[in-house]
Amino acid sequence: VAARLAATALVTAALSGKIAAIARLLSRVEEGGPAALTALEMVYAHAGSAHVVGLTGVPGSGKSTLAAQLARQFRAAGRRVGIVAVDPTSPFSGGSILGDRIRMNELSEDPGVFIRSMATRGALGGLSRATLDAVDVLDAAGYDLVLIETVGVGQDEVDVVRAAHTTVVVSAPGLGDDIQAVKAGILEIADVHAVSKCDRSDAGRTIADLKGMLAMATAAGATSSWKVPVVPTSAANGEGVAELCETVANHLAFLQASGEIEVRQQQIARQRVLAAAENILRDRFQDDAKGAMEELVADVAARKVHPYAAARDFIGHQEM
Amino acid sequence: VAARLAATALVTAALSGKIAAIARLLSRVEEGGPAALTALEMVYAHAGSAHVVGLTGVPGSGKSTLAAQLARQFRAAGRRVGIVAVDPTSPFSGGSILGDRIRMNELSEDPGVFIRSMATRGALGGLSRATLDAVDVLDAAGYDLVLIETVGVGQDEVDVVRAAHTTVVVSAPGLGDDIQAVKAGILEIADVHAVSKCDRSDAGRTIADLKGMLAMATAAGATSSWKVPVVPTSAANGEGVAELCETVANHLAFLQASGEIEVRQQQIARQRVLAAAENILRDRFQDDAKGAMEELVADVAARKVHPYAAARDFIGHQEM
Repeated sequence: VAARLAATALVTAALSGKIAAIARLLSRVEEGGPAALTALEMVYAHAGSAHVVGLTGVPGSGKSTLAAQLARQFRAAGRRVGIVAVDPTSPFSGGSILGDRIRMNELSEDPGVFIRSMATRGALGGLSRATLDAVDVLDAAGYDLVLIETVGVGQDEVDVVRAAHTTVVVSAPGLGDDIQAVKAGILEIADVHAVSKCDRSDAGRTIADLKGMLAMATAAGATSSWKVPVVPTSAANGEGVAELCETVANHLAFLQASGEIEVRQQQIARQRVLAAAENILRDRFQDDAKGAMEELVADVAARKVHPYAAARDFIGHQEM
Repeated sequence: VAARLAATALVTAALSGKIAAIARLLSRVEEGGPAALTALEMVYAHAGSAHVVGLTGVPGSGKSTLAAQLARQFRAAGRRVGIVAVDPTSPFSGGSILGDRIRMNELSEDPGVFIRSMATRGALGGLSRATLDAVDVLDAAGYDLVLIETVGVGQDEVDVVRAAHTTVVVSAPGLGDDIQAVKAGILEIADVHAVSKCDRSDAGRTIADLKGMLAMATAAGATSSWKVPVVPTSAANGEGVAELCETVANHLAFLQASGEIEVRQQQIARQRVLAAAENILRDRFQDDAKGAMEELVADVAARKVHPYAAARDFIGHQEM
C-alpha cells in the first residue's frame, strides 16, 4: 500500500510535467518490480495523446543528427518533444563524437525537450518493452511528439519501430550494399524515407534506389493509400529538415483522416501485448533456474525430450 | 499415421547420409507443421555427436570467406562439414560477390560438405529455431562439424550463437567504431576471436584492441578457465586458417576435459526451450487473430488495460 501511494504521488507529479519527477519515474520504470508496474498502469491510462515517431537507420546514417534537427524544428513550432534513444552509439546516449554531443547538450538545456537514453535492458523485460514504457511516460507527461531513435538492425529494434505511429527510415549515401542489406527488413516498415548527407554527390543514387524499391512495392500492391515519400536532407546546410517535419506531421494527419489510425493502434496494442508476453515468459523461465524446469532442461540436454515438447510443457503450466 | 510413416522413412534415409534425403528433410523442417515436428523429434534424439561451431561477424568482416577456408581445412583433415548460413548477405545464400560465390561452389561440389542457407523464417517459428533445427538434421546425418554462419547483430543471431559449442567472432580492421559498437554484445560471447584481413597494415590495432578488451574482461573475473585466444588470419595468403581450425578443435577438447561441456549443454538446452516457448506463444497469438485475444487487444488499444496485464492474461489461458 505504501509503495502504491508513493508511486501515485510520483506519477501525479510526472503527469503534471515536473522534470525531476519524470526523470525519477523513468528510472523507477527501468528498475522494474511491482511498484513500477503500478506506476506504469497509471501512466498508460493517461498516455495516448503524443505523436510517436520512430527514427531508425544503421550507425553512420546520420540519424542522431537528423533527430536533433527534427527536435529543434518541432520546438520552433512550439511543440514539446521527448526523445528516447535506444542506439548505444547515439550521441544521445553519450556514446559518440564530441561535436555531436555539444549539439545534443544545447538541445537538452531546453526545458521543452526531454532526452532519455535507454542504456540498459529493464529488469521487467527486454529492451523493446522498457523503451515503450519510457515512451508512455513522456507521452503521459505531456510531450506532444515522442521521437524514438533506434539502430535499424535486430528484432528488438524492429519491435520498437512497429510501435510508432510514424516510422522514418534514414539512409545515407556510400554506406555500402552489405550494410544496406542488413537493414532490408526495416526498409519495408518505413512510412517516410529520409536520405541524409544529400550534399554528397552520390546521394542521387541512394534516392533513386529507394524510389525504385518503393515503385516495385507499389506495383506489388500497397496495403495503405499513403504514398511513402523520400525526403532528401543535409545536416551540413539544414536542407530538407522543415520538409521532413511537415511530412511526419502529414503522415499523422493522413492516418487520422483515413481512419487508418485505428488499425495502427490495434497493431501497436497487439505488438505490445506479444512483446510483454514474451518477456514474462523469459523472466519466469529464468526465475525457475532451480525449479521444475531444470529436470526438463536436463532431459532436453540428454536428448530424451525435444526443446519444442519441453516448451509446450512449460507454457502449459503457466497459471496466473 | 501415413504422415508419421513418411516422416520416418525420410528421416531414416537422411540419417544414413543420403544427400537428397537430407535436402528434402531440411525443406520439410523449414515448412513446419505436425509432420515436421515428428521428424524433428526423431532427428533430435539421434543428434548430439557433431561439434557445433558458430561463426559470426558484421557484414564486411570476411566471415564467409573464413567459413569456406575453415570448411576446406577440416575437409583436408578428413572430417565431414555441414554449413548453415543465416546471413542474407552471405555468399552461401547466393547474395554476394561473384568471386566468393565461385569459391563456395567449389566447396559445394564436395560430397563431404553440405551447405544450407536459411533464407526464410520457418513456419514453426523464428529464425533461430529453424536454424537450430537445420543444425540438428546435419548433426544427426553424420556431419562431424556443423558451422553456423550468422551476421553478428540482433537478438535472433545472438540466440543462434548461444546454441553453439564454440563461438568464433570475426573482426576486420578498418570497419569503423560505430559498426564495432553494434556488435559489442556479441564480443562477450566469443570463445575464439579471429581477425580477418591481417595482410592489412591496420590489422595490428584491431588485434591490440581485442586483446585489451579481453585483458579487462579477465581482470573483471572470467567465468571459465578457457583463455580466449585472438587468431590473426588472412584470406589473401591463407595465413592463420590452420591455427584457427586447431584452436576451434582445442576449445572442444577443453570443454570435454574440464567438464564444462555439461554446463554448456545445459545452457544450450535452456536457450532452445526458451526460444521454442517464445515461438509457440507468438504463433498462438497470431493464430488467435479473430479469437479471444482481440477483445483484450481492443481494450489495450483503448488504454483501458495495460499491455503487461493483457499479456499475463493471455499466458494464463494457455493450456495444453
